[in-house]
Amino acid sequence: MAGMPNQFDPPSGTRDFLAQELERREQAFAVIRSVFGRYGFEPLQTPAFERLELLTGKYGDDGDKLIFKILRRGEHEASGEADLALRYDLTVPLARVAAAYGSQLPSPYKRYAIGPVWRADRPGKGRYREFVQCDLDTLGSASPLADAEVICAQHDVLVALGVTDFTILLNNRQVLAGLLEAYNISAEIGPRVLIVLDKLDKLAPDAVVSELREMGLGAEAGELVQTLTATESTDRIRVALKPSEQGMTGMEDLDQLLALVTTELPPGRITFTPRMVRGLSYYTGPIWEHIAPGVPGSLGGGGRYDHLIAQLGGPDVPATGASLGIERILMLPGPEPAPLRRLDVGVTVLDSQYATQAYSFAAASRAAGLRASVYLGSSGKLGKQLRWASDQGARWCLIYGGTEHEAGTVTVRDMTSGAQTPVPPAGLTSYLADEAAGQE
Amino acid sequence: MAGMPNQFDPPSGTRDFLAQELERREQAFAVIRSVFGRYGFEPLQTPAFERLELLTGKYGDDGDKLIFKILRRGEHEASGEADLALRYDLTVPLARVAAAYGSQLPSPYKRYAIGPVWRADRPGKGRYREFVQCDLDTLGSASPLADAEVICAQHDVLVALGVTDFTILLNNRQVLAGLLEAYNISAEIGPRVLIVLDKLDKLAPDAVVSELREMGLGAEAGELVQTLTATESTDRIRVALKPSEQGMTGMEDLDQLLALVTTELPPGRITFTPRMVRGLSYYTGPIWEHIAPGVPGSLGGGGRYDHLIAQLGGPDVPATGASLGIERILMLPGPEPAPLRRLDVGVTVLDSQYATQAYSFAAASRAAGLRASVYLGSSGKLGKQLRWASDQGARWCLIYGGTEHEAGTVTVRDMTSGAQTPVPPAGLTSYLADEAAGQE
Repeated sequence: MAGMPNQFDPPSGTRDFLAQELERREQAFAVIRSVFGRYGFEPLQTPAFERLELLTGKYGDDGDKLIFKILRRGEHEASGEADLALRYDLTVPLARVAAAYGSQLPSPYKRYAIGPVWRADRPGKGRYREFVQCDLDTLGSASPLADAEVICAQHDVLVALGVTDFTILLNNRQVLAGLLEAYNISAEIGPRVLIVLDKLDKLAPDAVVSELREMGLGAEAGELVQTLTATESTDRIRVALKPSEQGMTGMEDLDQLLALVTTELPPGRITFTPRMVRGLSYYTGPIWEHIAPGVPGSLGGGGRYDHLIAQLGGPDVPATGASLGIERILMLPGPEPAPLRRLDVGVTVLDSQYATQAYSFAAASRAAGLRASVYLGSSGKLGKQLRWASDQGARWCLIYGGTEHEAGTVTVRDMTSGAQTPVPPAGLTSYLADEAAGQE
Repeated sequence: MAGMPNQFDPPSGTRDFLAQELERREQAFAVIRSVFGRYGFEPLQTPAFERLELLTGKYGDDGDKLIFKILRRGEHEASGEADLALRYDLTVPLARVAAAYGSQLPSPYKRYAIGPVWRADRPGKGRYREFVQCDLDTLGSASPLADAEVICAQHDVLVALGVTDFTILLNNRQVLAGLLEAYNISAEIGPRVLIVLDKLDKLAPDAVVSELREMGLGAEAGELVQTLTATESTDRIRVALKPSEQGMTGMEDLDQLLALVTTELPPGRITFTPRMVRGLSYYTGPIWEHIAPGVPGSLGGGGRYDHLIAQLGGPDVPATGASLGIERILMLPGPEPAPLRRLDVGVTVLDSQYATQAYSFAAASRAAGLRASVYLGSSGKLGKQLRWASDQGARWCLIYGGTEHEAGTVTVRDMTSGAQTPVPPAGLTSYLADEAAGQE
């Protein structure tokens, strides 16, 4: 596959999916749909593009630059202006749908969406301009049960996809806000402080303290970092939060959520991680992230975002949701994929005068529920046609030449053993169905 | 759904698919994939956009105007120029893939593709700017067996989708070319004559003769039209073609293809239709079209196009393929869709102190293979929560309040009969699994 880029490669940052890779991806998506369905989430699909004005201003200045814009058409094309844009995520379209369909949607609206989004990022290893996002969200419920469902559904998907060694880090934005309050850090610099604290997973505590001090914090910088990173940090936080009503509420919510999910998840799978902040500013309650050893960044994450849908133009509903880094998950090393089996039955065509018979043998094989095709090449040689059947992964090859024509049978060759059995054409479907049932 | 367009509608000519409609579509696509797979066709997926220069000039002047072009990004955005474009069909991307992957693809390469394409057509009833195409093609085989496979696979898909009353019209471009030759119609005006003859399905024969005469044809116009429309036209054509070698070859090919497929198709399903031309100029051999009573236009069609892939920039390989009008097929009246069943089990939460139990009952229901969710709303009333479960299509509703807590059981309510059964929590999974098995 590697080599110099050429004019027939797909556009930079996009991929062609040939059969084997595509089927692997489709199987993963089917698993995800099934798990989400079991939790009562329903699918939603929106168009590839939206009106440009719906998207601009929603992703910050840096995000805006990465939007693929679509030129106006016809007489307006010469203006060089855009009126549409490829969707950048699945959340803004969700907000639009919530605004458009309102009471036609069930309440709460539990939906998942699996589909491509487009971002004009610089392409790199594992970074694409067209990639699939996989979101699930519940709009219209403030209950911690809604957060718990999202966390457990996402957990079950990872397990169903074969990811077993991972941890869910859980925190709560109100706990973090309470901590800032308890340490007398002003609301003005609060968000920036959180962004610095988010680096505690990569930087040494001292480095983070320095950064906080550069922002103007005093001794509370050291205390805050120590509280967040101490081995017994969760206990210390409970003590530290006492003066903050918001912090105590957040702590209660967090405990309640933990109680709901820990009974359903394997021991140690989810852990209260006070230093985990998640960069996005719109979260309002619980936040979580999935990490796996050896995987940089996260496999997914989510949180409660009670005012975002309204900010995006939708109704003002409480909301919680999560996203899986499905492209990253699909890249995790898994079991060696089985060689692609295009066919169960390959039917030789040794003599064009018997093409009609060969064609009907393929149909008889399909009637047995098998994938079957006649040989479509130009060689009349048995050896070459057997190789073709073998390359296609066929378990049986059907042979029909002069000998079989006179005998009134078709030869069924078992491609594994090489054994050949003459079968009367009228019995071919049931013979193959029996053989296939025996091999299962 | 109807009403004034508003700012939250999807862009003109595109659609949001909510759960019920989306699941109906996905089920149809799954049926199609399964049938194509049984014929040994493999899936291919290419990016939503291609380099603009790959698409321009491929669809004629009128087609070029309908291409959605993507503005260059970053510092180049101000130029107002486009460098990418949304794909307009699935054939040009196939030609690119054939050129890009060459020998990595199996030979012949039998592929299907199901995915959206985008055309800036004026939106109208059943005409969209984002719509799904469904193509299957075999590259690299000149055998009539390849044409037969495409015809039968397409036929089987229509039947599997519940379309039973349809006819396949079959013709051959070489037969048509031979007829023009036999009637001394010059190669120069031949293509235009074919386009006029294509109107024989809509216009009276006299009107078509007049149009041909306006083009400069003499008495042969009437003879040609009579040959094509006479009741015994297929016999007359065999006689008329005698002087044309190309026509005789085409006739032999057609007979061979008919012999292959008629044995597999119901009687009368496919019929040699000499007046059927199909508009596109690139066909080189057999051509076919699916028509159904009461459906204007066709449900699908295809043909052999031995030089198109090379013209589109790919390798010069023989090719045959077909397309299904899947959006049109999905609009055919079918059985009334069953009401959407979002849940099998709805779990009430009557008292937040029992939320953890309710949550674990939902998990126990999922462990029985059922779709289950807890009530996420704010009402504590049983009646309201039962209505919610009923609205979700739930077959069972689980109730757990003070009485159940004391008794150490959970009440399973059958939503159809209203019967309520106390079940110990530890036995809930197996109780529901048994109930579900009994209802199947």
